[in-house]
Amino acid sequence: MKRKVLEALKKNKDIFISGEELSRKIGVTRTAVWKHIKQLKEEGYEIESISRKGYRLLKEPDTLDPNALIIEIGSNFIGKHIYHFDSVDSTNTIAKKMAAEGAFDGTVIIAEEQIGGRGRLGRSWISPKGTGIWMSIVLRPNIEPTEAAKITQITAAAVANAIRKATGCEVGIKWPNDIIIHNKKVCGILTEMGAELNSVNYIIVGIGINVNVDIKEFPEEVKKIATSIRACVGKEISRKDIVKEILLEFQKLYLDFIENKNIKKSIDICKKYSVTLGKQVKIKNRDKEIIAEAIDLTEDGQLLIKNESGEMQTVISGEVSVRGITDYV
Amino acid sequence: MKRKVLEALKKNKDIFISGEELSRKIGVTRTAVWKHIKQLKEEGYEIESISRKGYRLLKEPDTLDPNALIIEIGSNFIGKHIYHFDSVDSTNTIAKKMAAEGAFDGTVIIAEEQIGGRGRLGRSWISPKGTGIWMSIVLRPNIEPTEAAKITQITAAAVANAIRKATGCEVGIKWPNDIIIHNKKVCGILTEMGAELNSVNYIIVGIGINVNVDIKEFPEEVKKIATSIRACVGKEISRKDIVKEILLEFQKLYLDFIENKNIKKSIDICKKYSVTLGKQVKIKNRDKEIIAEAIDLTEDGQLLIKNESGEMQTVISGEVSVRGITDYV
Repeated sequence: MKRKVLEALKKNKDIFISGEELSRKIGVTRTAVWKHIKQLKEEGYEIESISRKGYRLLKEPDTLDPNALIIEIGSNFIGKHIYHFDSVDSTNTIAKKMAAEGAFDGTVIIAEEQIGGRGRLGRSWISPKGTGIWMSIVLRPNIEPTEAAKITQITAAAVANAIRKATGCEVGIKWPNDIIIHNKKVCGILTEMGAELNSVNYIIVGIGINVNVDIKEFPEEVKKIATSIRACVGKEISRKDIVKEILLEFQKLYLDFIENKNIKKSIDICKKYSVTLGKQVKIKNRDKEIIAEAIDLTEDGQLLIKNESGEMQTVISGEVSVRGITDYV
Repeated sequence: MKRKVLEALKKNKDIFISGEELSRKIGVTRTAVWKHIKQLKEEGYEIESISRKGYRLLKEPDTLDPNALIIEIGSNFIGKHIYHFDSVDSTNTIAKKMAAEGAFDGTVIIAEEQIGGRGRLGRSWISPKGTGIWMSIVLRPNIEPTEAAKITQITAAAVANAIRKATGCEVGIKWPNDIIIHNKKVCGILTEMGAELNSVNYIIVGIGINVNVDIKEFPEEVKKIATSIRACVGKEISRKDIVKEILLEFQKLYLDFIENKNIKKSIDICKKYSVTLGKQVKIKNRDKEIIAEAIDLTEDGQLLIKNESGEMQTVISGEVSVRGITDYV
């Protein structure tokens, strides 16, 4: 109901809409309308109310309020169900629990703050309150576990496109799962799954983006390797706009994969923005380390490399350092 | 403490041990000893108590009491922590939850009854109270998700060996995950995992065995495809003995894999008892179906097949029907 009030206000932005009209449109009493308006104000919406004229939406807060997001993205499949938390251990942990309990395909979990945010292999990840996007998407594709890596490539493509579109910031993609600006990490993607041997029960895509973090507040060793979108564009950026673009871009690329059984569109984007291809790379996997030249991405999103003895091989995933580009491990 | 009382009684089976001696050995009061004895009796242990002589263990119940199991298997790594439930949805579901919350490598979950027991791909599985073994093992090997199929082969080998050893029943292995007797299924293995793209967080091996189920009570359509160990050997069999052998065999084969990075011992057992090799098989995987001849197992536990056009290929997992052997899907 509150969403309907907000939707009506957003549709009539800058003009007044009377309490009577709102009450008629939504089918609730004028008192109920008044209560929802009060609640929206408390959430940070600036709403002007003048007697005889009605209500007018002046400014929306940059919260990741599901009601506002769902209005923006429309009847999307990705984000049809959005759960918003103030503070969580990590959105991937919540998403895995919800997935195990039957959450719908396309469910999105967003938090204002992560206490125990993790990067790949259980590393910690700094996620201060309200300054970033900490989000996980629950997916239930009918694929083999070996195909899960494709979802990481789809996500990298979607996030790179979305950040460019929403902020103008010219991000690059470091294969397989980092989004970078000027050689520093601004976003990490963590793909996890619950699976049987030849079928996936669920896949969780975790996306963590430093949006309005003040990089001056990073510890010294983090400053060298991480940045934020605010540092890139020189001003605060609406997190909601970025989330909206990510969900729309992701849905487009993901559905293309599900419907056409290939990820060509995503791979083309990953190649276009790649900072890895053509460079010398060090790839760590478990106890093995390979130094090689990154040649291309295969149609499955694997990295084609030429190793030191000149042989070509493909790599599904791994910890990658790019010579001259990223100092970070 | 109760375990220590039980342990002392088991060590001195058939002879009397006085309350005073028990109390001294265990370091508790004689009243405490008496209370533990009372509790053990309530759990089904037959304990004779004669004043001035003390206590004597006459008969143990066939429960899967962790105290009794842990005494039997000693300081095993697999089964060092055993959780026993009266009735659960499925032991794999419990195991996944516990694994997500940090359960130790080698933790075992056993239930007397499964309400929502599942076979592969979410199929239901009949698990009446007290008549079977419904058990899951939590593992945390440092392996790639693609290696998870090896764990299924290790389990199949361990279970086949254990049932043969504990009951004399000459079971066969239908690749990749069924144990069968006279062409009927007596045990299914369900391997699930939580993973990132190139590292496993945990693997759950679920083992369901029809032990003392009266096959006359199976529905008609189940009678054709399933059997029990009791039907094989013609009498009730101790579930505890089977669980003990499985945990010991599994540990041996699993540690061999972890330490030597191969599963040769397990594959040799899987080949020896295979009902699949040399036969024509139908393998279903997602929407594909292959008719082929089963030639061999690879050293990774994959099935090497010769397809209808005479080409050799390997299969990691799938739903297999063996011509002339198993009618069941």
